[in-house]
Amino acid sequence: MNSLERHDLPLSKIPKRWYNVLPDLPRAPDDYLDPANRKPVGEEFMERLLPKALIAQETSLERWVTIPEEVRSAYGLWRPTPLFRAHALERHLDTPAEIYFKYEGASPSGSHKLNSALAQAYYARLEGIDRLVTDTGAGQWGAALSLACARFGMKALVYMVRASFESKPYRRHFMETFGQQVLPSPGPHTAYGRELLEKSPDHPGSEATAVSEALETVRQNPGDRFSMGAFANHVLLHQTVVGVETREQLEQIGKQPDFLVASVGCGSNMGGFAFPFVGDKLAGADLEILAAEPAACPTLTAGEYRYDFADASGLGPLARTYTLGHDFVPPPIHSGGLRYHGAAPLVGLARAEGILGSRAYAQKEVFAVGSLFARLHGLLPAPETAHAIRATVEIAEECRRTRRRAVIVFCYSGHGLLDLGAYGAFTAGEMTDAEPYESVAAGDPVFADRGGR
Amino acid sequence: MNSLERHDLPLSKIPKRWYNVLPDLPRAPDDYLDPANRKPVGEEFMERLLPKALIAQETSLERWVTIPEEVRSAYGLWRPTPLFRAHALERHLDTPAEIYFKYEGASPSGSHKLNSALAQAYYARLEGIDRLVTDTGAGQWGAALSLACARFGMKALVYMVRASFESKPYRRHFMETFGQQVLPSPGPHTAYGRELLEKSPDHPGSEATAVSEALETVRQNPGDRFSMGAFANHVLLHQTVVGVETREQLEQIGKQPDFLVASVGCGSNMGGFAFPFVGDKLAGADLEILAAEPAACPTLTAGEYRYDFADASGLGPLARTYTLGHDFVPPPIHSGGLRYHGAAPLVGLARAEGILGSRAYAQKEVFAVGSLFARLHGLLPAPETAHAIRATVEIAEECRRTRRRAVIVFCYSGHGLLDLGAYGAFTAGEMTDAEPYESVAAGDPVFADRGGR
Repeated sequence: MNSLERHDLPLSKIPKRWYNVLPDLPRAPDDYLDPANRKPVGEEFMERLLPKALIAQETSLERWVTIPEEVRSAYGLWRPTPLFRAHALERHLDTPAEIYFKYEGASPSGSHKLNSALAQAYYARLEGIDRLVTDTGAGQWGAALSLACARFGMKALVYMVRASFESKPYRRHFMETFGQQVLPSPGPHTAYGRELLEKSPDHPGSEATAVSEALETVRQNPGDRFSMGAFANHVLLHQTVVGVETREQLEQIGKQPDFLVASVGCGSNMGGFAFPFVGDKLAGADLEILAAEPAACPTLTAGEYRYDFADASGLGPLARTYTLGHDFVPPPIHSGGLRYHGAAPLVGLARAEGILGSRAYAQKEVFAVGSLFARLHGLLPAPETAHAIRATVEIAEECRRTRRRAVIVFCYSGHGLLDLGAYGAFTAGEMTDAEPYESVAAGDPVFADRGGR
Repeated sequence: MNSLERHDLPLSKIPKRWYNVLPDLPRAPDDYLDPANRKPVGEEFMERLLPKALIAQETSLERWVTIPEEVRSAYGLWRPTPLFRAHALERHLDTPAEIYFKYEGASPSGSHKLNSALAQAYYARLEGIDRLVTDTGAGQWGAALSLACARFGMKALVYMVRASFESKPYRRHFMETFGQQVLPSPGPHTAYGRELLEKSPDHPGSEATAVSEALETVRQNPGDRFSMGAFANHVLLHQTVVGVETREQLEQIGKQPDFLVASVGCGSNMGGFAFPFVGDKLAGADLEILAAEPAACPTLTAGEYRYDFADASGLGPLARTYTLGHDFVPPPIHSGGLRYHGAAPLVGLARAEGILGSRAYAQKEVFAVGSLFARLHGLLPAPETAHAIRATVEIAEECRRTRRRAVIVFCYSGHGLLDLGAYGAFTAGEMTDAEPYESVAAGDPVFADRGGR
């Protein structure tokens, strides 16, 4: 009996358009606020920060946005990606549910992140920008942007969370091999970084500290623009190439999804995968969209929906979304890509409007499921992806109990080949679970000003 | 202008048959000799070593061998693989040559090795064998066999060259995540390993020492069989799925190759890629087949064509092929997969019959070309693959000088994501070239008995 069943799209079916969820949402997203005066950010603020094409995409109300031919051509490096059915996992779980996954693991940078990186590098090059500056956690985004910038002849500067910079040199070497510059955050290259290091020389960094350093650098160099791997609407827009393909693949085999599952750090993976189905759901489809988060940083599961800074220093705009507080420093779990205090505003809005739900999982149960999946299917998932598999297993087990023949589709956001140190620790029995958020939130000094906001 | 151009085959075009080069070669390969009496090995000797289906394939004279449906289905995890045209590299080199490459880098184990691993695990399972025991250098083969055995519910034991075991823990973690056992070679688990360690406690190991330990283990456990990642005819047979696809893809775009280029450690990559074109060459096609080797271990370029042991200890059969001597310990270069003293007998025979040629390259020039390729195309090649790219660049530069519009096709045998430590060393300017073979051969004590053989 077959272990995996694959559904392809031909090269010619790389989507010609991204899907923009804004016109389909029940209400418009709240404005970004200028940190200086807490009023909606002006054109000038945004243009100093981002390429103009991306600013236009940020607030566009067009449902479909044309993908430039140069970007489509670059997608041809590995897209369209396959949709697999995981027969072996279904049999292992003895579930009547059908389990499908969209496989982003053959991306040359290792994850879905490249979908937006190529678009951003293309537009930046078109507008004559010198360099893109960005932040990265585990390095998935930094790797993607480094590759994309090399591909379009651009320079990139990547601030990498110090904990990952030191413990995951491979992704740093990847970025450097593509000719780009990588600096640890916090580090001595910005005023913000120096200040943090003075207060705590062993600061492990977080996506939020790296964002702060990237923003400070962009403000000081007129030829620089900031690049985001998640959060912003335009990033989620670019990622919808994943969901648009998935929707077409499911239609081809005559399947309606009952569950769409994706891991959420900030939300680019979830937004890109699930947003093209939101119109169906709002039109009445019986569809549950579920975010899988780490228990150590459960933004959608335990956060508050309110205005907060996207970065740690308060240099960037404020956005209304789910947040654990911009001064929350998540513990150094192995899913570095999920260590972020806030959700992308569009994902936050979707959560607030009841369009998607979330569940949180501890580290060891996630690696156990990641290892199981590898042995069953021959594909080693990134720890981030393993969160989505963990949630899928939970749903499939519920289906076994309720005898429901549900169609579950999860997004296999990236491979785990550069996370083998963590798998090694798990296999050797040396992995521990990080403290879950709830117990940290109760007494940790990083929440000193939490009550006051 | 396009950077890459991709030519796909649909899922249904996964080859149904492997191509067996034996009936097309000008003469039959020489017999394997039993180390005990130097007479052709008997059935019993082989059956204690290998699954029966593989022994039959080893000497089969059928030109086409049916691929079992279960193996084809497993190939569907990532096959058929794309054929790319490297426009950006052509432009960079300003060459009139057309450069194509067959992309094996999206294999879930990271390289072409999985093509044979899946077949071997399938046959072993079918014959009720308990466990497959093997050797691995950098870990590409060990990773592939570990994944394949997990996929078919088999156990694997991998002896990994100690230098790689210690310096490349990621591939070891990969194998362990798939539930398999990995031991360093030389190590204390075999008599041969203990003997070596006694003589030189810091012995870095080689593919030959790992083979010896694997053979000793198989001889001691009746339920074990030996598994080879290269060398044997049946391994090259399984790998021809690569060349069969390539041939069909080139036919579809109406191109005749003038050069076929592949790296050679032992020859599974070269054999699998180029053998399906040998019939064309012998029928008169103007086709040059070129092996790219490391200067530190140039088996085909500087070796002798004679009988030698495949392993370091003389436990396995003798084979007539190109060899640098079974007691030659190649220096620990980063292309661990190319550190082998001998060539697969069929590749050796093809070299001896003038069907293929070879060139050797130093480590730093190889990494320079690997980095260049990554920046131009967004794909990071394994160091082994970068040897083939180095040779391709050299040919393309010759074509520039001679204004020849040649069609060059190389095999992109695997990705370099688990070789980023080496790329990091190269980028940081910390890489040195290993001593080329010629200067080692002149005075090294491992060649003490060279004259006597």
